[in-house]
Parts: sequence; C-alpha cells; structure tokens
Amino acid sequence: MSESVLTQADMVIRTLGPAKIPNGLHTRHGSHPSLNRYISDEEKVLVNTLTHPSIKVADPPPMFEIAGAREKIFFDPTKLKVAIVTCGGMCPGLNSLLRSIVLQLHFMYGVSNVVGIKYGLQGFIPSYNHHLVELNPEVVSGIQGRGGAFLGMSRGSQPVDEVVDSLERLNIGLLFMIGGDGTLHAASQIVQEITDRKLKLSVVCVPKTIDNDINFVDPSFGFQTAVEEATYAIWGAHNEAKGAPGGIGLLKLMGRHSGFVAAHATLAMPEVNFCLIPEVDFDLDGPVGLLSRLSERIAQRGHAVIVAAEGAGQKFFGKDLGADASGNKRLGDIGVYLKDRINEHFTKLGMEINLKYIDPSYLIRSMPSNSGDRIYTTMLGHYAVHAGMAGKTGMLVTKWLNKFVHVPLHLAIAQRRQVKPTSTIWQAVREATGQPNLLNY
Amino acid sequence: MSESVLTQADMVIRTLGPAKIPNGLHTRHGSHPSLNRYISDEEKVLVNTLTHPSIKVADPPPMFEIAGAREKIFFDPTKLKVAIVTCGGMCPGLNSLLRSIVLQLHFMYGVSNVVGIKYGLQGFIPSYNHHLVELNPEVVSGIQGRGGAFLGMSRGSQPVDEVVDSLERLNIGLLFMIGGDGTLHAASQIVQEITDRKLKLSVVCVPKTIDNDINFVDPSFGFQTAVEEATYAIWGAHNEAKGAPGGIGLLKLMGRHSGFVAAHATLAMPEVNFCLIPEVDFDLDGPVGLLSRLSERIAQRGHAVIVAAEGAGQKFFGKDLGADASGNKRLGDIGVYLKDRINEHFTKLGMEINLKYIDPSYLIRSMPSNSGDRIYTTMLGHYAVHAGMAGKTGMLVTKWLNKFVHVPLHLAIAQRRQVKPTSTIWQAVREATGQPNLLNY
Amino acid sequence: MSESVLTQADMVIRTLGPAKIPNGLHTRHGSHPSLNRYISDEEKVLVNTLTHPSIKVADPPPMFEIAGAREKIFFDPTKLKVAIVTCGGMCPGLNSLLRSIVLQLHFMYGVSNVVGIKYGLQGFIPSYNHHLVELNPEVVSGIQGRGGAFLGMSRGSQPVDEVVDSLERLNIGLLFMIGGDGTLHAASQIVQEITDRKLKLSVVCVPKTIDNDINFVDPSFGFQTAVEEATYAIWGAHNEAKGAPGGIGLLKLMGRHSGFVAAHATLAMPEVNFCLIPEVDFDLDGPVGLLSRLSERIAQRGHAVIVAAEGAGQKFFGKDLGADASGNKRLGDIGVYLKDRINEHFTKLGMEINLKYIDPSYLIRSMPSNSGDRIYTTMLGHYAVHAGMAGKTGMLVTKWLNKFVHVPLHLAIAQRRQVKPTSTIWQAVREATGQPNLLNY
Amino acid sequence: MSESVLTQADMVIRTLGPAKIPNGLHTRHGSHPSLNRYISDEEKVLVNTLTHPSIKVADPPPMFEIAGAREKIFFDPTKLKVAIVTCGGMCPGLNSLLRSIVLQLHFMYGVSNVVGIKYGLQGFIPSYNHHLVELNPEVVSGIQGRGGAFLGMSRGSQPVDEVVDSLERLNIGLLFMIGGDGTLHAASQIVQEITDRKLKLSVVCVPKTIDNDINFVDPSFGFQTAVEEATYAIWGAHNEAKGAPGGIGLLKLMGRHSGFVAAHATLAMPEVNFCLIPEVDFDLDGPVGLLSRLSERIAQRGHAVIVAAEGAGQKFFGKDLGADASGNKRLGDIGVYLKDRINEHFTKLGMEINLKYIDPSYLIRSMPSNSGDRIYTTMLGHYAVHAGMAGKTGMLVTKWLNKFVHVPLHLAIAQRRQVKPTSTIWQAVREATGQPNLLNY
Repeated sequence: MSESVLTQADMVIRTLGPAKIPNGLHTRHGSHPSLNRYISDEEKVLVNTLTHPSIKVADPPPMFEIAGAREKIFFDPTKLKVAIVTCGGMCPGLNSLLRSIVLQLHFMYGVSNVVGIKYGLQGFIPSYNHHLVELNPEVVSGIQGRGGAFLGMSRGSQPVDEVVDSLERLNIGLLFMIGGDGTLHAASQIVQEITDRKLKLSVVCVPKTIDNDINFVDPSFGFQTAVEEATYAIWGAHNEAKGAPGGIGLLKLMGRHSGFVAAHATLAMPEVNFCLIPEVDFDLDGPVGLLSRLSERIAQRGHAVIVAAEGAGQKFFGKDLGADASGNKRLGDIGVYLKDRINEHFTKLGMEINLKYIDPSYLIRSMPSNSGDRIYTTMLGHYAVHAGMAGKTGMLVTKWLNKFVHVPLHLAIAQRRQVKPTSTIWQAVREATGQPNLLNY
Repeated sequence: MSESVLTQADMVIRTLGPAKIPNGLHTRHGSHPSLNRYISDEEKVLVNTLTHPSIKVADPPPMFEIAGAREKIFFDPTKLKVAIVTCGGMCPGLNSLLRSIVLQLHFMYGVSNVVGIKYGLQGFIPSYNHHLVELNPEVVSGIQGRGGAFLGMSRGSQPVDEVVDSLERLNIGLLFMIGGDGTLHAASQIVQEITDRKLKLSVVCVPKTIDNDINFVDPSFGFQTAVEEATYAIWGAHNEAKGAPGGIGLLKLMGRHSGFVAAHATLAMPEVNFCLIPEVDFDLDGPVGLLSRLSERIAQRGHAVIVAAEGAGQKFFGKDLGADASGNKRLGDIGVYLKDRINEHFTKLGMEINLKYIDPSYLIRSMPSNSGDRIYTTMLGHYAVHAGMAGKTGMLVTKWLNKFVHVPLHLAIAQRRQVKPTSTIWQAVREATGQPNLLNY
Repeated sequence: MSESVLTQADMVIRTLGPAKIPNGLHTRHGSHPSLNRYISDEEKVLVNTLTHPSIKVADPPPMFEIAGAREKIFFDPTKLKVAIVTCGGMCPGLNSLLRSIVLQLHFMYGVSNVVGIKYGLQGFIPSYNHHLVELNPEVVSGIQGRGGAFLGMSRGSQPVDEVVDSLERLNIGLLFMIGGDGTLHAASQIVQEITDRKLKLSVVCVPKTIDNDINFVDPSFGFQTAVEEATYAIWGAHNEAKGAPGGIGLLKLMGRHSGFVAAHATLAMPEVNFCLIPEVDFDLDGPVGLLSRLSERIAQRGHAVIVAAEGAGQKFFGKDLGADASGNKRLGDIGVYLKDRINEHFTKLGMEINLKYIDPSYLIRSMPSNSGDRIYTTMLGHYAVHAGMAGKTGMLVTKWLNKFVHVPLHLAIAQRRQVKPTSTIWQAVREATGQPNLLNY
Repeated sequence: MSESVLTQADMVIRTLGPAKIPNGLHTRHGSHPSLNRYISDEEKVLVNTLTHPSIKVADPPPMFEIAGAREKIFFDPTKLKVAIVTCGGMCPGLNSLLRSIVLQLHFMYGVSNVVGIKYGLQGFIPSYNHHLVELNPEVVSGIQGRGGAFLGMSRGSQPVDEVVDSLERLNIGLLFMIGGDGTLHAASQIVQEITDRKLKLSVVCVPKTIDNDINFVDPSFGFQTAVEEATYAIWGAHNEAKGAPGGIGLLKLMGRHSGFVAAHATLAMPEVNFCLIPEVDFDLDGPVGLLSRLSERIAQRGHAVIVAAEGAGQKFFGKDLGADASGNKRLGDIGVYLKDRINEHFTKLGMEINLKYIDPSYLIRSMPSNSGDRIYTTMLGHYAVHAGMAGKTGMLVTKWLNKFVHVPLHLAIAQRRQVKPTSTIWQAVREATGQPNLLNY
C-alpha cells in the first residue's frame, strides 16, 4: 500500500472499549508537573512531509496517532495479567525491549503479573511443553546488555485457535507480540479471533526485523546494530582482499527482500566496490555484467570487495525452492553461487584470484544492541505499554519521522519496505562506491 | 526562533547566481537512468509534522528546501578551487565528513583543486604560519576509520576581513565550513563580507556539535557516537558504585547548554539514578534536593549513579566566570562541585561512601565515529557538495525528519536546541530512571 | 628479597596436615585416563632461567612447587564450608575468578557449601552488618562477562582476631583471599592467628594488582585488560594532541610504585613521546628536563603525548601526604601537577598549547576482562581450589615463567616488583618512543 | 624433536662472520647509561624449567641464546640494504611487526634503505611483476592499528634459486622473513643456497602462525587476538543456541594440526560444551560418541555449543584430499560434516533442533591486533633487527618462558607444537567445560 493512496480511514486504531479512570498510572512520582503530560488521541503526525507543487495530498492528509501515555487507561493494573512473546529470528535489542516493557508495566502502571512465553508461538501450544517465565524487574535486571533472546524464539506459525485458547486459559488481558512480517500477520489473525470470541484482550505489537523491511517502520530496532557489526565484516573482507594477489572479499549480508543492511553497511564502510541488493537487478554475464566489471577492477586495482544481500540475484535460481518453517520462500544461496561463478570465471581467464567468502549473519544477529538500539527499544517498550494500557489493539508502535506513533496492523503488513533505486540511500551508495550499472540492455 | 512562527520568507536560501549548464556533473557513470534523479528547488519538506485540532499552521506551512544534486551547477569544475575548514572542538565523524566532501568533489563533479585549512580559522591568518593541505582521494584514503581531526582545529574567532582577504588571495570559489554555533555565526559574517565585496564565493556549512544543540539540526553528526562511548563510562561508574560500600559513581558528560548527551546516554544505560541537565532545575539542599534524595537511595540500595551534563546546576556558581577563547561563557565545574558537596554531606551524616568521579569528555570526543555517524557524515558530505556546486550559499545541510535539507544560517543561529522538560526524551528518562523531582517549591 | 639469594628453605609451602584419600575428587568423569594426571609435591619449576658463565646459582637452585590436582585431598568435600573474599580496589577479572573457584569447588570436588563475604574484610566484622552471599553455579552464571566486583570490595585493614573469630563462627575450613599487597599481609597475619589457635583452616590467596607489582607474580590478572583499555585512552590523547595547535595529550595511568601499566601501554600504542614511571627519575627543569624537551618537541612537531604513572615524580611533592584507608602512602597528584607546570611553562614562553588532561583510571578498573584475563582467572581459580583442597595454606597461586606455581606468602610480600631501568621492557619503551634521558647530571 | 633430547649442539645459531665495531648503533640518545646494556652471546636462557627427582637433564642443560642488542654489529648501516617479506595467510600483528622492524632499523641503527616485497615469495619472482615497496617511518606510520597485511601475502613455494637470484640482484644484505612452517622451511633452504653461493646475506625469521603450532614458539604473535575474536563468535553461538528450541551453536575455529585456538577460546568463554581438537580423538557414533552425548545434553538442557578446530576429526574423511598451494594437506571440512551428521542424527530421533553453523575464520585473521599482540610484535621487531644487525642468520626470534631468544631454524621446523592431552591447558578445558570422553573403547 503506497503512502500516497492512504486515507484517514486507513489510519484508524482499534481500542478495546471505553477507557476507565486510571488507578495506577503515574502515581509513583506524585505531583511533579512534568508527568502530567498526557497524549490525546487527537494528536497526530503527518505520514508524508515531502511537498512539491505537483504533489496532491488528501485533505485531511494521512496522519498517524501519536504514541504516549493517555490520561485514561483501560485495564485495572491490579487485576491485569500480561503476556509477552518474541517470535522469529534473533535480532539485537530484543532483551532491552523486553526489560523496558516489564519495568514500565511494573513501575509506571503497577502491573506485576507478567509472564513470558518461551520460544515464540510454540510456547502457547501445550504439546510443546515449554514452561512460562515469570517476568519482574529482578528477573530482567541487566539483560539489556546481553545479546540473544531471553525468552527464546521459534519460527513458523501455530494454530490461531490454540493460541487464543491458551490466552484465555492463562487469563491474559494484554499480549505484547514482538516479531516480523509473519508475526504481524499472525497477530492480525489473533486479533480477529479475539474479536470473534468477544474477549477483552488487547494485542500490541512491536515490529522486529533485522532487514528493516516492514512498512511504515523506519528504522526497525536492531537495524543500526546490524549495520555496525556488518561494517566490521566488510573491514575484514577489505583487509583480506588487499592482502593477497587478486584478492576478492565476498560478503553475504542479511536482506531477504530488501537491501537496507547491505546498502547502509556499504555507506558506513565504503571500501565496497559492488553492492548487490534484491531491489536492483544485475547480470553476471555480458559486457556490463558483474563478472566483466570485476575482471576490469582486478586488472586495474588488484583487489575488490563485493557485498550481496541474501535476496539479491534470485533470478539465477530458476526453480521454486519451497518455503521454510516460517512460511518464507526459500532463497537460493547467492553467496555460494557468486563464489563459484567468480572462481570459475577467473579460472577460465587464467587470472590468479584469492576469493574469501564471509557469511557473518549469525554473529550479527546474536550481538547485544548498541546504545542507539538500546535507547530505541527502551522507548518502544514505554510506548507499547502506554498503548496497551490505554486499550489499543491490533496495532504496532514504531518511530515515523522521528516521532513515536501507532500504526494499524493492516497497513504494516500491506506491503514490504524496500530500497527504492531512486532513493537517497541508493543514490548515496552509488556515489560512495562508484558502482556502475551491471545490467545489460 | 520557535518553529511555529516561521514563515516561508524565513526559509529562503541564497544562491550565487544563475546556474550554468553542468559540464562535469555525473559524467562518470554515463547514461544509467538512476543518476538522472535531480532535485528541483521546488521540492520541499515540511518543518513540522505534528498536528492537532488546536494547532494553527501558516499557509503555506514552513518548508525546507530538499538537498540533492541540481540539474544545473554554478561553478565550472575545471576552474573551481575549493577550501575546507574545521573549527572548534573535536567531534567523531569529522574525518569521515572531510573524506566524503573530497571524494564527492573529485569523482562526482571532477573538482580536483581542493585545499584543507589547518587548525580552523587560524589557518586563514598569515601570522599563524599554518600551511595548506592539498586534499585528494589518496590523501583522505582510510581517514574515516580514525578519530581526531585530520586538518586540526582551533577555538576562537578571527578577523572576518582577514579571512576573506585570505579566501581572495587563495582564489577560493567555494568554502566548506564545519563547526558549531560560533562557526555558524562567523560563517554568517563571512557571507556578509563576501556579499559586500561582491565576490563569487559560496559558503556552505555542515553543523558540528557533539552537544546536539544547534537549531533545526537533529541529530548532529558525532552525537550517536558520543552517546555510545558515554554508555561505557556509565557502565564503569555503575560497576564502581556496586563494588564498594556506599558506592557512588558520578559522571560528567558533555552538554554546555543542552542535556541531550546526558539524557540519551542515560536512556541507553538506564542504571543511572539521577540525570542532571541544564534545562531542568534542581536543588542540592532541602527536603527533595539531590543530597537528601541521594542519602535515601544509599540508605535503601547501597549505591547510586549520577550523570551530570557540564552545564547543569550553573546557578550554584554565583559570579560570572568570563568567557573562553571561542567566546563561550566559562562554566563552573559542576562535576567537581557535586563531588565535594556529596562527600561533605555524607561526612556530616557519618555514612561511609565511596565516590568515584569520572570525566570521560576528551576520550569521547577523540574516538572514531560509529557506523551510523559514518553513514551520516558520508551523506552530509555528498549533500554539502551538491549544494555548493549548485551555487547555494549562507546555508547548512542537515537532516530534518529523516530528510536531508538546506537550512538558512540565520535560522540555525537564532536559538539553541534544548531538551524540553515535556519532550518524549525527557519523559523517557524520567520513566527509565524513576528519577524524582529535585526542586523544592 | 631478590631472586638470587633465595634458598630452597624459602620455598616451603605449609600444608595443614596429612592428606586424606580423596572422596570427591574427579569422580565426575569416571575413568578417562587424562584425568589421572595428578601433580606430586616433588614436581617443581625453576625460579630462574637466565644463565651466564658468571652467574652462580644455589645447588639445588630455588624452585617453586607446581600447582595442580594432588592425588590426596585434605578436606572432606561433603563437610567443608568455604569462604571467598575480594579486597582492595577493582580489577578486571575478579568475577571470572570468583566464578571459576565456585564452579571448580562444585563440579570437580563436590563442595557445595560456599559463601561470599561482602565488601572485603568489612564483611567479617559484625558491626558493618553486611550479609553473606550464597555462592553456587547458578548464582555466578555469566558473571565472567561483566566488569565490577560481584561481592563488592573495600579498602583498609580490619582486626585480625575479629576476622578469625568470624571464620570460626561461620565454621569455615577453607578461605580464599583475593587481593593485593595489603591483603597478602593481612592473610599472613590471619594464617599466624589460625596457627596460634590451632584451627584446621586453610588460607589460599590469589594475588590481585592492576599495577602488576607483586613479587613473583608475573603477570597479575587484569593487567593485560588494563593495558588494552589504557591504549584507547592513549589513542584519544594522541588524536586530541594532533588536532589542535600545540596539542599536548597528558594521560595519568595506574601505577603507584611500579610503571608496568604505563610502560606496556606505551609499547602497545607507541605514539607516546614521554613515558614517566616511578622507577626512572626525571627532572622538569634544567636543560634536559621534561619541560625543555617538551618545548623542543612542540616547536619541531607541533604536538606531543605524555603518559605518567600515578607514582611518577613524587619527589616534586616535598611533604609527607599521609596514608589512605588501606594504609597506602598518599601520593601527590602528578597528573594535575604536570598539567599546571606545563601550562605555566608555555605561558611564560608565549607559545600556544592546547593541553588535554585525561585520567581514565576508574574506567579501566571497572571494565570486564579480555579473553586473556578470562583464561588466566579461570585457570587461577582451578589451581587455587586444587591447592586449597590439598590442604595448602599461607600461599598464593600464580603463573611464573608460564607455569602455574605455589608461592609462599612471605616471598610475595618481601618486596615489590618494579620496572628495572635495564629490563627488556624499559629498553623497548626507550626504543619505541625515542624518549631521551630527562635527568640533569 | 622433543625438548628432553636436545643438546647444546642443537642450539647453535649461525652468524655471518666476525662482527664489526658498530658505527650506527645507539648513537641517537648519546650517553645515557641505560642504553649501554648490550647482550653477550654467553647469556642464555634454559629451555626447560620443570624439574622432578626422576628427570635427568643434559649437562649443561639445553639453552637458547638471549635476544638483544650486541655490542658489535656485522653490517655497515650506511651501506646495508634490507628486505622484508610476509608469507602465507593473514594474521593479526603483521603490520605492527613490519612497522617495528622499519622503525628500529631507521632510528636505532640508521639503516634507511629498506624495501618491502609484495605478496610473499611471489614478489621475488620477476614473472609476477609485483613492484617493490619503499619502507620508511612515514610509510609505516599508523599501520599498527590496522588489520590486514600491508605488503600483501601469498601462499605456496617459489624456486629457491630464483629467490636468491633476486636477493643478489637487489643487493640485499639482510632479509627478514615472516611466515609459518612452510616459510621457515623455505628460509632454511634459502640459507643453504646463500651458504653455497658464499653470499654475505643474513636471513632472520619471525615465526607467524595463528594456530600457535610452531615448535619452541610460545605464543606466536596474533594468537591472543585470534582467541579474543573467537570468543565473540562463541558468545554469538551461545546466544543463538539458547534462543531457539534445541538450539545448537556449532563453531569452526582455526587449527589445522593443533587445537590451541579452540582450547584457549573455550577457556575464555566456557559456555562451550564440546571442544574438538586434532590432538584428542573422538567418535561420532557409539554409546559415548559425540552424537549420543549431544542428544543427552539437548534432552537435559535444551541447548549446546560445540567448538571444532578445523583439523579435528580428520579420520572421518577417508581418502587423501591432496594439498593446497602452500603444500599443506587439504583437510576435510569438519564443520560442514558435523553440521550434516548432527542434523541427520536428530532428524532420525525426531527431535527438533536449530543448528547454527558459524565459520568466523577470515574475520578473525584480518582483524587488527590487540594491545598484547602489538606489544609483542613491537618487541619481536626490535629483537629481529638486533639479531640481523649482529649478523645472526638461519634463526628466528621468539619468546620462550617470557624471555626473548634466538632459536635455530632446524629446531623450529623439526616438529609441530600441539596441545598435549595431559597438558594443563587441556586439563583446564576439561575442567571448565565438564566435557566427557567421546571415544568408545
């Protein structure tokens, strides 16, 4: 769903019902005036800020609700039971986010009954026999500094009715779901099932994608840590390339559908000569194909660095490769494919090269988050709790144009964010690397 | 100058004159369509995105010019001589920015005559005898990974007429000035002098402030690196505090007028119990003053961490302390003052404390930038060159609401950015630390 | 006590009595042959390896007992109660060492009754009211990756009889004391008191000194981490120095009596021009004094980096400055003194300098240990437990010439290790920095 | 060649001839007494320090020459031309070593004619057309902080006579060869050829092996950096393992013949459950084989971490796999093999596992060295130059029992260093991991 066709109707966030007078909110600090800053649902932020005489905007223009503490809250903190679940693959910042949600519930709203679901949606399904984790400030103390996923995660969907059965059985009133595209789809179905069953049960999502590819989520948490870690790998690849005759450093980075990690890491360490992403087509063969350009580079400069997002060049894998446990389309391994094709190409040419292939993905995903992502996840946790306590459901919290906002789930899953070839970021990659067109006409 | 009273008239950027047909622009990559993305001066970005029924906006609302390559350029790349100067105090990202400007000039516009001015504005003044540095891609190769300031810097103003004399003598057509509030003021005066002398000389600024306190600049480059490094110091302070009976870690961080570094670092490492910034008043004595709150904390928990921005609590230093070489008001040393007052307080109480005072400022300023600041400075460099080649002058390039824009100098120096006590960031600090009000009524 | 006058009599380690047949040792892994490697008290390692025709060695030459598992152990693991105490100032590796001792006791010897004493020797004294910490594998899980001191520490001595009263009251059979010179002296007195009281109570020490200045301990744990962290500070000082006209980076590093940290950090980041340590005398004034040499350097090269160990140049502080809580002689602050004298010197000369003074001490002490120190502390923990279970007392475990050995306490406290001006390390500092003599004749 | 059978005859280092009065040595600093510390060839260090009543040592015992400045030097610094070559694979510390050799030659001996050979031994062979690199203090400034190999490297041997032809043509008097086992063999042959041709040409080696597997070299430079970097990868593997149901982190580390990196990294991050090295045999199948032990671990604890040195388990690859360009035996890929066998095993069992396979080798090799390795390489460079200027040849410099010594080449290449299953380090791995025997009887 492109930004330009949005109407105000698309922006509506569901709330569970009429809000109650808060009985736990902000009582900790008493009367200090700075805490009497409540957000009204009337406060909004524009979705678009670009203007040009030729651009027509809807009137009123599309706007997101601003996130923040509401004056009235929906749930009674003393009776509320909250569940938190983390789904999909690992991403820096998960633990900091988890800690922030738990502390915010506990200290700002006085909600002490919080459980963690082990190993993603599996944890809701009795047959897996995963236990619940009681979550309180002591349990989550210090976890923000560690990588990994405190609650564990799993890929793949689970039956929606069993999940909701489990939520009912556990008497959950507010569920925080942290996950990517698949998880947001699952959340959407869970919300529908909850609605059908007429339960008083809110679902608030925090989007998680190391690829930074969720619609209206910019950036996703963990993304800047991933880019930071990826730059070390590029540095290593560059050192390896310069250190051997015909040295070629080939790096595969995260990015199944969107090349944000590859593009940003390239900009952060612009020793890259070729950055390959799913959104920009390229050829291997032919006069301007990668292999030809690479031979020129090696002949002239003696070394080269190539960064490929994992979803780049999928046209080279003809047949359908099926899907993984999460229902994601299996991708051909572009890193190994490029390694083989490049080695073969230079063998034919009789040129000595020394190709070092590096796949740092798991190392990046499991790292602790950097300070930027810790700040971001701390604040996302605050806002997720504010939204949940206010009775919002079927939505996610995220940053949009530097403001924290509520985005309806259906907008977030309508399409993926991708690197536009005409965007400033791709333009910057082109300018920083001097990378030529690699597509034959 | 507050955002709400801006009119379109405030937004006007000067340009040097009618643009010429570009003769060097973008010829490197030939005909690839993605390079034919030029920005028109008609493309704008809104200054404000927050809306509420009660908010009245000007019609048309205030908008900034979008940064980017213009189809026509003002200077002849083969004849143009460019100077770059870095002023004030050290800041992570300076070298990455310098490299980006040089490479962009060289590779995208074919400008090869670029000189670096040593040690800030001193380098323009003959009596200092600083030599010029020839800048080309080879000279700046790899400097983005190093901390420090390749060209050197200096504080303090220099006579505007001597600077412009020097620019004339050197036959400079385009000057890039990188610096903070003082530098932007100087730039403004230099532009006026250039106008008075009717010279064809553009001045394009890139704002530099580790305090993140320049108007309409959010964030400033180096800021996220500073926060990252500051969190290590907080971590150390926290470890020291927990490791001794009555342990108190006291940390002074950058922030003369604005507490952004202290606030963000606190959010990134929320082991902080008290975060003191210039914008939020606090008492030391009295029933809710810091000393009283601190004794409570030590009595209950045995340890505490305090972060103070250097400009916090200046009311405790009665007399005027004069100004430094840059003309900045001298500040009382709040770190040492707090250290002494706290030690004295607990001595009186007869409680054992172990206060460790840490001032990591120089370590932070001299570090290499992290990947986020390298990306940012790489792009700022691109956009600064695009602006300069298009003949823009008397302006700066920066990011505003995730878009790169042109901001007129007079707006940037009209007032300082500060942490608003009602802002989301200060609210988040309050929520993350549980810090109480410290001001007696 | 110099190495050359040692005799075999000096090397004797006390053991508590006749060893018992082990009943818990190494039963976990059953019959694997590699675990049947027990060390006999007859296995020794030479104290000295240097030889020269002119060197006379005692016959037999001085030798240390080799550390390791003994076939017979003294204590019954099922009845033994163990205490661990960490004393003095913070040092990287404390937590890794603590974890290793606890795990080794638990898993290799089946000792599960282990308590941690809070805040050093204070924890033994009832009036401080510090609680005991139960130590088991779960409690210490993951602490090796964190800086700080899990049990807390304190400086200063406590009455020996009260400490031993407390040990008796708690029914401790084996005490691990981790600390520096003062702690080893205290341990020595505690052992004497235990002997006088005829208690079955072993005291095994692990030497801790970030200054690396304990006799026959080379290196001490935490030292290499301290050097690593110190190099970042030197890097920062160097960047600051190069970035300003007349830039001088002045760094104070740990080293009250011995300049090992300063010397090694200088070698690791040889941008240092002057390395000042307690063992090598220097003048400030006079034709070859530091100030004169520094002016030459600034005149010729424009910048300089000075590293001073905290104990350097104490001759400039005439009067006795008393002692701190640990009984250590108070030192004059050489860093601040040098800063003032250098600024004054150049003011007189009328030369512009920009001196940045950096004191990173607390940041270094509180950092987590690097991998080398984690390996070392893991192994020290193993060997300390082997020694303790075998009934050794009044000794410490350490590495000597790459072998883990037992050193009698009286040898370790007989004198301090210092940097010899003729040693290879100081020679290397001289060669790496080109630092001239700074002492007038 | 085992240490115990060494005789003094084995220890002889060749020198080129009668030494000359030094004419450049140590003149820089004039008369300072600490520089008059010359080493005599009579000063030695014992090879062995372990003693036991049952151990018989040769009389005199085996001893190495101590490294250091000799009073008389062989070469005339003003006429000497020096070459430096780096061979084999990348290793942290190469650049710091190169810088140290160049600076020591220049500043301590006044040798200014120094050339670098590009891409290892290839650089001597005219047909490769690699150019020479002039090496002086300015060129190598700052390279110690960067990873990679400034001169480039290559694997594989080159004809000895062509190398010596090239040395003659270039008029080289002193050659520094930095490399591993293959390079030391080549050096040995080059020395023989030089002897046969009666040339005045010294060859001084500095051993380089990231595997730490060269005889009488303990440790090799780069090894501690490799271990440090490897621990991050183990940390990542551990986080991945704990974060998924049946999570298994599988890590392949360097170590073709010797498991030092794997063993030390395991000790530094003892979350490892199984550490597999070439020196300790293990089974996959059978009641105590790895697969069986792994199923137990997963059933009981839910996750596991496995570290495998690349040379571990080669018995599973029946056929001879040939040799690589360096003449090294090709190894079966134990990482991929284990990954496949483990996945297959759990599929059969019907247990869900999530195996993440990580191969961080290239990232580790290309990193900059840590402070310990920078100190070590700085000093190795000093000592290599002292040895070379004194006319030593056919030897290497290294540290042995904390002393810098000269080791004859033939001793270093006589056999490999390996992890002895009865050594303290392997014992420590067993104790730290609780790893059981994995070999069926």
